[in-house]
Amino acid sequence: MKTVGKVYLVGAGPGAEDLLTVRAARLLAAADVVFYDALVPAAIVALATRAQKIAVGKRCGAHSTAQLFINRRLIEAARQHAIVVRLKGGDPMLFGRAQEEIDALDDAGIAVEVVPGVTAAVAASAALKVSLTRRGVSRNVVFATPRVGKMERESDWIAAAALADTAVVYMGAREADALADALTRRGLAASTPVAIVENASIDDERCVVGTLGDLGRLAAALGGGPAIVVIGQVLREKLAAERLRAAKRESARTRVRRAS
Amino acid sequence: MKTVGKVYLVGAGPGAEDLLTVRAARLLAAADVVFYDALVPAAIVALATRAQKIAVGKRCGAHSTAQLFINRRLIEAARQHAIVVRLKGGDPMLFGRAQEEIDALDDAGIAVEVVPGVTAAVAASAALKVSLTRRGVSRNVVFATPRVGKMERESDWIAAAALADTAVVYMGAREADALADALTRRGLAASTPVAIVENASIDDERCVVGTLGDLGRLAAALGGGPAIVVIGQVLREKLAAERLRAAKRESARTRVRRAS
Repeated sequence: MKTVGKVYLVGAGPGAEDLLTVRAARLLAAADVVFYDALVPAAIVALATRAQKIAVGKRCGAHSTAQLFINRRLIEAARQHAIVVRLKGGDPMLFGRAQEEIDALDDAGIAVEVVPGVTAAVAASAALKVSLTRRGVSRNVVFATPRVGKMERESDWIAAAALADTAVVYMGAREADALADALTRRGLAASTPVAIVENASIDDERCVVGTLGDLGRLAAALGGGPAIVVIGQVLREKLAAERLRAAKRESARTRVRRAS
Repeated sequence: MKTVGKVYLVGAGPGAEDLLTVRAARLLAAADVVFYDALVPAAIVALATRAQKIAVGKRCGAHSTAQLFINRRLIEAARQHAIVVRLKGGDPMLFGRAQEEIDALDDAGIAVEVVPGVTAAVAASAALKVSLTRRGVSRNVVFATPRVGKMERESDWIAAAALADTAVVYMGAREADALADALTRRGLAASTPVAIVENASIDDERCVVGTLGDLGRLAAALGGGPAIVVIGQVLREKLAAERLRAAKRESARTRVRRAS
């Protein structure tokens, strides 16, 4: 009889090496094989000191054929090794394409366990120091992504995002203009506060704050790193503080000009 | 001059000791003082071996006066100690009342850092082995809570939850009947698949699966532990599998009865 191992779908967290869970770190150290997404930082993959490490495409760009290939490789690996780790950015169950892999492993009779992780939205919130929910301001938050497959409609998720007190859009920065347009058409004011956090929790983390009407310009000012867009009144004090700082800078500049 | 320390708002994760982040574990080990919510398991609080450990009320039940008292104690602690940890269940920025504390510390000129954690919703999803988002089924998910303050309206969050592909309701089990009613009035079919996960990630973890029309009965069958309600079509295979198992059990029972 063949050794049949177990596959662990593990959330790698938002990027910082120490925002991995203790369980994830232990599993990586013990793993025989690790399949990892392109978005998982090298420092985290490197924690799997004894494992064979195999890169398997992008977090969100995988085509179905690529997914079938990954499923097959996971099954093969579990038939040869005790501990197989499938490492995904953030949490596996949020925008991680985990279900296809869970179902394929289940169908093949292979045990699978999901190890939850810190999702990028809360790392972005931590970076901003702005809570996603807030007494009297936001009691609910919608997590969405604009990456639209051919079968998928835009209208419903935009409606849900427009109705929620706080909306967090994963990988939303590249389509910032379209996103702002769609939300404005759904009744959100152009003055609604927004923030974009790029590279949340890792080097080159950057936060920008502004309004929905300005979202395209804010996004254009960032680099190409993974970015989280936060939209809602939870950001209003942050926006006001940002404007105050800008006004002070402007006054200082005016004083310098007058003095010279 | 007084020593002025730093306050870390730390997510304790969903409950399991090893679903804490590595950063959180290190901060607890180094902390001088830890203020913790009632919902954080004792095993996690105990990781703060050298700290003075202070319980400060419930995760969601704190009144404003209690909150002001916590804010004041955090400020006092930071004026006397280098590392002050404020430990909250799940992630601090989701239903954690973090903003009041961040703002109070900011106003007092005390440095504050937020350490994100694994939120209960993804731990529940891991327990169910059902992804919250799924290609072609769910591209967005709303996190909400029915705990309604006097100033807050029900209608908007229910509408957002009804429109989202997947809805996750924190602490929703106790008000399961009202929740099901409100969502049904908003157009969700009584046949919509639902699940409740009680004590996600810890001892006595329990998952029940059924339909929205059945939510009250499902909730009543659980114990009194913290529970997460998941609603949406991402659960339809899980529900079908559950029904298949129930049908098989019923057939086996019938066979036994006929044989006797």
